[in-house]
Amino acid sequence: MSNIRSAHQNPTPVTVVGLGPMGLALAGTLRDHGHHTTVWNRTAERAASLRARGARLATGVAEAVSASPLTITCLKDYETAHRVLGPAAGALPGRAVVNLNSGTPEEARAAAHWAAERGAAYLDGAIMVPPPLVGQPDAVFLYSGPRAVFDEHREAFATLGDPRYLGPDPGLAVLYNAALLDLMYATVNGLLHATALARSAELPATEFVELVRTWFMPTVIDAAFAEQAVNLGPGHYSGDVGTMEMNRTALDHITRTCLEQGVDAAAPRFMTELAERAIAAGHGEDNYLALFEVFRKAAPAA
Amino acid sequence: MSNIRSAHQNPTPVTVVGLGPMGLALAGTLRDHGHHTTVWNRTAERAASLRARGARLATGVAEAVSASPLTITCLKDYETAHRVLGPAAGALPGRAVVNLNSGTPEEARAAAHWAAERGAAYLDGAIMVPPPLVGQPDAVFLYSGPRAVFDEHREAFATLGDPRYLGPDPGLAVLYNAALLDLMYATVNGLLHATALARSAELPATEFVELVRTWFMPTVIDAAFAEQAVNLGPGHYSGDVGTMEMNRTALDHITRTCLEQGVDAAAPRFMTELAERAIAAGHGEDNYLALFEVFRKAAPAA
Ligand SMILES: NC(=O)c1ccc[n+]([C@@H]2O[C@H](COP(=O)([O-])OP(=O)(O)OC[C@H]3O[C@@H](n4cnc5c(N)ncnc54)[C@H](OP(=O)(O)O)[C@@H]3O)[C@@H](O)[C@H]2O)c1
Ligand SMILES: NC(=O)c1ccc[n+]([C@@H]2O[C@H](COP(=O)([O-])OP(=O)(O)OC[C@H]3O[C@@H](n4cnc5c(N)ncnc54)[C@H](OP(=O)(O)O)[C@@H]3O)[C@@H](O)[C@H]2O)c1
Repeated sequence: MSNIRSAHQNPTPVTVVGLGPMGLALAGTLRDHGHHTTVWNRTAERAASLRARGARLATGVAEAVSASPLTITCLKDYETAHRVLGPAAGALPGRAVVNLNSGTPEEARAAAHWAAERGAAYLDGAIMVPPPLVGQPDAVFLYSGPRAVFDEHREAFATLGDPRYLGPDPGLAVLYNAALLDLMYATVNGLLHATALARSAELPATEFVELVRTWFMPTVIDAAFAEQAVNLGPGHYSGDVGTMEMNRTALDHITRTCLEQGVDAAAPRFMTELAERAIAAGHGEDNYLALFEVFRKAAPAA
Repeated sequence: MSNIRSAHQNPTPVTVVGLGPMGLALAGTLRDHGHHTTVWNRTAERAASLRARGARLATGVAEAVSASPLTITCLKDYETAHRVLGPAAGALPGRAVVNLNSGTPEEARAAAHWAAERGAAYLDGAIMVPPPLVGQPDAVFLYSGPRAVFDEHREAFATLGDPRYLGPDPGLAVLYNAALLDLMYATVNGLLHATALARSAELPATEFVELVRTWFMPTVIDAAFAEQAVNLGPGHYSGDVGTMEMNRTALDHITRTCLEQGVDAAAPRFMTELAERAIAAGHGEDNYLALFEVFRKAAPAA
């Protein structure tokens, strides 16, 4: 308890490089929690409101990095991060860089390599919420890289939200970010398309969405998820209560229903094709979860 | 209270036509709750276990329909239902038929028309759970068609699960069924694909699925759904906190991550194409929910 208090009374100085909507939210949150905060941005004017709140604007990126043991970069992409941090190479040895921009695992690993070559400790991360939610206790941030770097700066990370450490491979945070966004887009697409279909009958969409929220997601989908965690993998796809063939037929009904109702049919048609790929791969008598086997192996280039 | 009791003491005789896995579950549940149950199936042997539980096997479909004021059909599809019920035309006048097989709204409306021509009351329905869950209090069954027919047989429907009446258009039940299945497939596909991506790093899938179940679905997705119920429709797609262009970039990161990790990229590529269609339709500066406008209008035939 007293440790936590003293950590809060004496928080680490933090530098934030990149003041887009997300960088502004990060720097503002750190500053409001008493961190000595230094910022730098290509377009210096974006720092105006932060300066009014007590953040210091550095005149160059090397000066910014030198001001704190921890620099958080939140730029457009990895390429921009390399370009922006390049001139600060002299300030990097012995300091920590935490990169929070989006990208791919290979880009994250390359950035870790780049930082190691310059003597900096490096952690990669991914922000799972939009800027207005930064600083909320359930704002999940994913981190990966050396555990010691995560532990050393945990207090600053906890100021920004709910920090989750995934493992030493620096690519893990962006990988999990990609997987969660993949799920989010698939689910939101599903809801938008299903709502378009339900609404094609001129019923209010609210009724359908309520059925989805109060019954379908918590009951049907959550149960499916709980089961799936254990039942994915060859030999675990018994078709006893429903086969891939049966599901292909159901997907065909959905496609035909879209065509009847004048709703775009590309999404159910694409899902039908996926079921057909699973059948072609020998999963016709397996259950629907066997689609996992199609997904986990890249298709040969067309 | 006394009404409910007397209804349970004197339940309606019910006929079930079609004894696939679902018809067997329906007839077994009705019989176990004390309904005088008559069944018919093309392959008579499938009735064996039901007969042992006290159901009566009719020797023909006309005899089966004549045995009860209410006949539930649960066959492979509408075409089969027409073929099977055809010879029972003489028994239909004054009786009710409730058709629970899957299909399209037009097929349901055609079946209602077919029944009306033969003097039968007709209700269409859709079963939202697999056979083992029939009879559970949260097993949702959707019904549409004349309200009076639903009300008259509500007690029998309540025996089978949680009956929801949608409206007088007989196509509504299969339409909602299609929309809910559409959402289910999209969501399960999303989970399977996202799990394949997360697991490509050789981490246990359980960890990812737990993050999804305990944080992502209840927090991020439920909030998205709650918002979407009100915010769908032209003029409601402000891009202030994130544009379609930004989301297209994120989808591109997901696709590239799949390629790096050796995971099938067809699904994120398809989602990227949808975002591109939205941009081409003028929604580049709108938020992601503007994809609803792409879905709600059928694309011109290619
Ligand atoms: N916004 C969100 O909802 C959200 C959520 C999660 C994660 N993220 C991630 O957070 C990162 C930052 O996002 P953001 O929303 O703040 O906006 P962004 O548009 O992705 O990035 C803006 C930042 O990049 C800088 N920048 C761009 N090109 C540059 C260049 N050639 N040289 C120097 N600096 C350059 C900008 O500087 P100027 O101000 O000078 O242009 C600004 O600091 C991204 O990787 C994004 O994917 C964002
Ligand atoms: N099973 C599920 O999880 C589930 C969930 C929700 C809704 N449903 C829907 O419920 C309906 C029934 O499904 P099910 O799972 O029971 O199995 P099914 O294979 O869809 O249907 C089997 C029934 O159709 C009959 N049938 C098929 N072709 C026939 C023909 N040419 N002439 C006469 N009868 C014929 C079968 O008779 P025989 O026994 O003689 O072959 C059997 O009674 C379907 O529309 C399905 O979509 C099923």
